[in-house]
Amino acid sequence: MENQQSYPSILLENVVKEFANLPGVGKKTAMRFALHLLKNEEITAENLGNSILKFRSEVSYCRVCKNLCDEEVCEICKNSRRDPSTICVVESVADVMAVENTAQFNGLYHVLGGVISPMNGIGLYDLEIASLIKRVENGGIKEVILALSPDMEGDTTCLYLYKKLAPFDIEISAIARGIAVGDSLEYTDEITLGRSIVNRVKYKV
Amino acid sequence: MENQQSYPSILLENVVKEFANLPGVGKKTAMRFALHLLKNEEITAENLGNSILKFRSEVSYCRVCKNLCDEEVCEICKNSRRDPSTICVVESVADVMAVENTAQFNGLYHVLGGVISPMNGIGLYDLEIASLIKRVENGGIKEVILALSPDMEGDTTCLYLYKKLAPFDIEISAIARGIAVGDSLEYTDEITLGRSIVNRVKYKV
Repeated sequence: MENQQSYPSILLENVVKEFANLPGVGKKTAMRFALHLLKNEEITAENLGNSILKFRSEVSYCRVCKNLCDEEVCEICKNSRRDPSTICVVESVADVMAVENTAQFNGLYHVLGGVISPMNGIGLYDLEIASLIKRVENGGIKEVILALSPDMEGDTTCLYLYKKLAPFDIEISAIARGIAVGDSLEYTDEITLGRSIVNRVKYKV
Repeated sequence: MENQQSYPSILLENVVKEFANLPGVGKKTAMRFALHLLKNEEITAENLGNSILKFRSEVSYCRVCKNLCDEEVCEICKNSRRDPSTICVVESVADVMAVENTAQFNGLYHVLGGVISPMNGIGLYDLEIASLIKRVENGGIKEVILALSPDMEGDTTCLYLYKKLAPFDIEISAIARGIAVGDSLEYTDEITLGRSIVNRVKYKV
């Protein structure tokens, strides 16, 4: 059906097509977005359009940790109250924000920009691995925490990073995997439950 | 939690805020959109931003039926093979496309731009009602089909339009309401089922 749809205006067709490129957005949702922009003041569409253009063309990456930032070095790396000897390696900018929201980590980050995934054509040189090694080589690092997703690609990347970082005199840790807070044992998959038993920790009060 | 979230970049924060204004889009989805634009080529974001700006500033409405179009009169109104004596009154541009997709209607349209809804501050003068009456006054119209949503506002608008159009020598019809194709009687609500019995039609083979 969708291919037969004829739009009354080429401008509408274009904006629907572009919206539909966003992840999780189909033609119907895209159409809803377009009609929303039409119903609202022109400034709504202007702000959206301009913020998208400005964001993509002007945003830059922190020279140190490769996180998004507006200057050369990001707020986290510049913050003298954070511990520069601990680096938390994450996949994306969203993960930095997720860890920051826990308020449980006071070190610095390193954003890889993805995980090794030959299926998606992402190899070693597409990621910020060399810059991570360089940071460790420069010294002053005591611990690297690998905080990647617990899937095939994440595990592969962790293993590779471990091999690269092992020669240095630093501690290498990975975030704990186990049963999420609030989940019941009964419905947890075997692999997670098995790992959470093998990697059990000393009970602390 | 969401209020505490601190973005690493103001540009990111802005684009997330603007995306989150779209209907059905929250902060998490908006963030996903932003990171999608970041991952893809710059041209993706440029196309999206420019198409939004162009769409909102350049799109115009058909002088006759108030449908979206790129010229003064839309393709449907210009089409000489369509029957100009029948007008289908719909709420929005999306509804025109929905009716067009059925390929069951060969007349012209009239887009009201909404329905009477005092709750949302939409009154008679916010809608294209006067222009509809004018079209009928100009003559040549045999039938007006009211194709509005079957809810309180839609019914109110239908009733108002009926009263306004009744003095003219035209047929006024409304789209049939009843059980949707594929639905089962058992799970249909009483009002719909009741209406479909009251408004039963002669069985045709």
